[in-house]
Amino acid sequence: MPKISNKGLEMPESPIRKLVPFAEAASKKGRKIYQLNIGQPDIKTPEAALDAVRNHNIEVLSYSHSAGFDSYREKLAGYYQKSSLPVNKEDIIITTGGSEALLFAMGSITDPGDEVIIPEPFYANYNGFATASGVKIRAIQSSIDNNFALPPISEFEKLISEKTKAIVLCNPGNPTGYLYTKDEVQQLADLALKHDLFIISDEVYREFAYEGAEHHSIMSIPELAENAIMVDSVSKRYSMCGARIGCLVSKNTEVIATAMKFAQARLSPPTFAQIASEAALDTPQSYFDDVIEQYTFRRNLLVDGLEKIEGVKVAKPKGAFYCIAELPIEDADDFAKWLLEDFEDDNETIMVAPAAGFYSTPNTGKNQVRIAYVLKKENLERAIEILEKALKQYKLQK
Amino acid sequence: MPKISNKGLEMPESPIRKLVPFAEAASKKGRKIYQLNIGQPDIKTPEAALDAVRNHNIEVLSYSHSAGFDSYREKLAGYYQKSSLPVNKEDIIITTGGSEALLFAMGSITDPGDEVIIPEPFYANYNGFATASGVKIRAIQSSIDNNFALPPISEFEKLISEKTKAIVLCNPGNPTGYLYTKDEVQQLADLALKHDLFIISDEVYREFAYEGAEHHSIMSIPELAENAIMVDSVSKRYSMCGARIGCLVSKNTEVIATAMKFAQARLSPPTFAQIASEAALDTPQSYFDDVIEQYTFRRNLLVDGLEKIEGVKVAKPKGAFYCIAELPIEDADDFAKWLLEDFEDDNETIMVAPAAGFYSTPNTGKNQVRIAYVLKKENLERAIEILEKALKQYKLQK
Ligand SMILES: Cc1ncc(COP(=O)(O)O)c(C=O)c1O
Ligand SMILES: Cc1ncc(COP(=O)(O)O)c(C=O)c1O
Repeated sequence: MPKISNKGLEMPESPIRKLVPFAEAASKKGRKIYQLNIGQPDIKTPEAALDAVRNHNIEVLSYSHSAGFDSYREKLAGYYQKSSLPVNKEDIIITTGGSEALLFAMGSITDPGDEVIIPEPFYANYNGFATASGVKIRAIQSSIDNNFALPPISEFEKLISEKTKAIVLCNPGNPTGYLYTKDEVQQLADLALKHDLFIISDEVYREFAYEGAEHHSIMSIPELAENAIMVDSVSKRYSMCGARIGCLVSKNTEVIATAMKFAQARLSPPTFAQIASEAALDTPQSYFDDVIEQYTFRRNLLVDGLEKIEGVKVAKPKGAFYCIAELPIEDADDFAKWLLEDFEDDNETIMVAPAAGFYSTPNTGKNQVRIAYVLKKENLERAIEILEKALKQYKLQK
Repeated sequence: MPKISNKGLEMPESPIRKLVPFAEAASKKGRKIYQLNIGQPDIKTPEAALDAVRNHNIEVLSYSHSAGFDSYREKLAGYYQKSSLPVNKEDIIITTGGSEALLFAMGSITDPGDEVIIPEPFYANYNGFATASGVKIRAIQSSIDNNFALPPISEFEKLISEKTKAIVLCNPGNPTGYLYTKDEVQQLADLALKHDLFIISDEVYREFAYEGAEHHSIMSIPELAENAIMVDSVSKRYSMCGARIGCLVSKNTEVIATAMKFAQARLSPPTFAQIASEAALDTPQSYFDDVIEQYTFRRNLLVDGLEKIEGVKVAKPKGAFYCIAELPIEDADDFAKWLLEDFEDDNETIMVAPAAGFYSTPNTGKNQVRIAYVLKKENLERAIEILEKALKQYKLQK
């Protein structure tokens, strides 16, 4: 039998998916599961986007331009310009999700053996894209004690070598919910300029900033034009995860020309989804206001609820819709499995994402979980109640 | 300024796209261009597929399963079973186009430095996927003189080394239109078994076989179960190129498990497109009968027309909708550019794909072009007429 590649063997399994078989078994037993583990919002997709697809008048569903619809890129540039970001149509390649933009960015700037530096905990699929590209991730720990703020720049400098090609940021952060300050983004920019590095800034949660906090995009720093690559997506912004539309943005024409070669090889991004995404750009501000209000409410509910549970420590998120909580347990992997296999309260339980999968340093974050606050009030309240009861019972049993 | 990766620099540009600027300039001059260069069919997408999307009742456009809709995989397995292929739901991963399936297949079985063997001329984007994966393509020439039949197995054996991981086939072939015989597929299977290699069989044109010729899928050989990876797509089958749905199929559970890790990293294939693709499976046989009749007619028209032009040699295609023609010129690159820049007949011209981009051996196929017969009768007739006139004029000028 022929052999799988080393790369294939090393490809990490998603830390969230690992629990799926246990969840399926629990569902089969008739158990209701509150899903705190995935970033799939319950928010309705804007009608304008859904209607645009309903009203399509396509006869031949043909390939689009590899960079995406011209009209969509133009309009999307306008969206960024409204946030005072100097983005033009030519700086944008439409991709199949932010996921593909991350893959194109890595492929365009790294070779096998190269390294990228990422503050951990980080979005777990960066591991997958890095492995697929043969790239090594060097992690710098951020800490729950200061809500996962940017680690000292000196920590980055310690890791920078000939092999370092980029710093990857997630702003606002998944799983941390951290929103980098203007000063932090500037510090990173200075670092990148000093060492001639790229910054890949994953800003798929850019609209999700709470309490009026401002989001500082990597594209807002003029002197970083040649170094900055922004990754964005419609998935979370318009609750359109299934569309699979994102984009790669850069003012560096070499980056765009190179990423375009990757884009051309795969021909084009999905057409129906581009129709939906273009229409979504007309979503009125009131939609976002409602959504932000909703998430702010949920965040407060979650954080307050968690803080009331004995032994739980939580990092208050300023953006995105996740938070990391430290639990009074030793092994969140075991706890998460136990929740699905052995626990129930009134035939209900919860599913959480063990945070260790978001760290690349071994044995880190083992007592932490990531909780997504994508559930409505009653469900979130009930989920917190279940967590509290479960922690008590788990403690007694172990 | 930070540097692009070597991989990025090596990523080939699509041989077809290179001509686009010249075509755009010609269009601006008001010139009508008959596009013989791209595999974008003019055939209507089945109404059932388009309607399914029109009638969607999605409220939250959420991620689907990373392997695709369960219902779609099930029904798709049924489609293969109707062709007597032993494919079950578990053997299928739905991908974003056949393109992504090719990328997942390469990623799952090759590491940087590995090699794959491909008969040339071959689908040019194999170069892109190989480069992205750090894999070297070793090409074996097939010849226009026998319609691009399988080269002798001894030629393959000469290239097989420790580094060889797979043979990549395209059946029916783009750009050759060649349909492998049962015996040829069996010879390749024996070779793969003897040397413990994978066969990646790109069968995206599987429905396009003419004159009642039978298509022999790699999945039809039971003893090859662990070695065979099939790539398929809805793009051409249902004239749904813009959907971006394909699949990777294998009975090798390690291959599927590994490709699933790549699939999970990118979350899911596009939802609207899956709805369309699932509905497309209900397309009645009469649709295909019409399409095949249409393409058979066009093929005959094209081949007969080309054969009448002095100095033109053409390989009669048995499948897909391309053919390679050898022209009485030295450099098809130059000729193709000239057609767009300097030639016109009644303010009309044609666009062809120089075949050199489909060969990986340098200086091969330089006097050949690939012609896609995706135009309707009148247009195809006119395009052939233009080609004939252009060849005469080109000869006089050079
Ligand atoms: C931080 C981050 N980046 C990128 C993505 C990829 O999203 P998509 O491919 O749906 O745009 C996600 C999805 O959860 C994410 O959380
Ligand atoms: C031989 C071959 N394989 C794969 C593809 C990829 O097609 P898609 O990604 O649209 O499924 C094409 C498209 O032209 C092709 O000709």
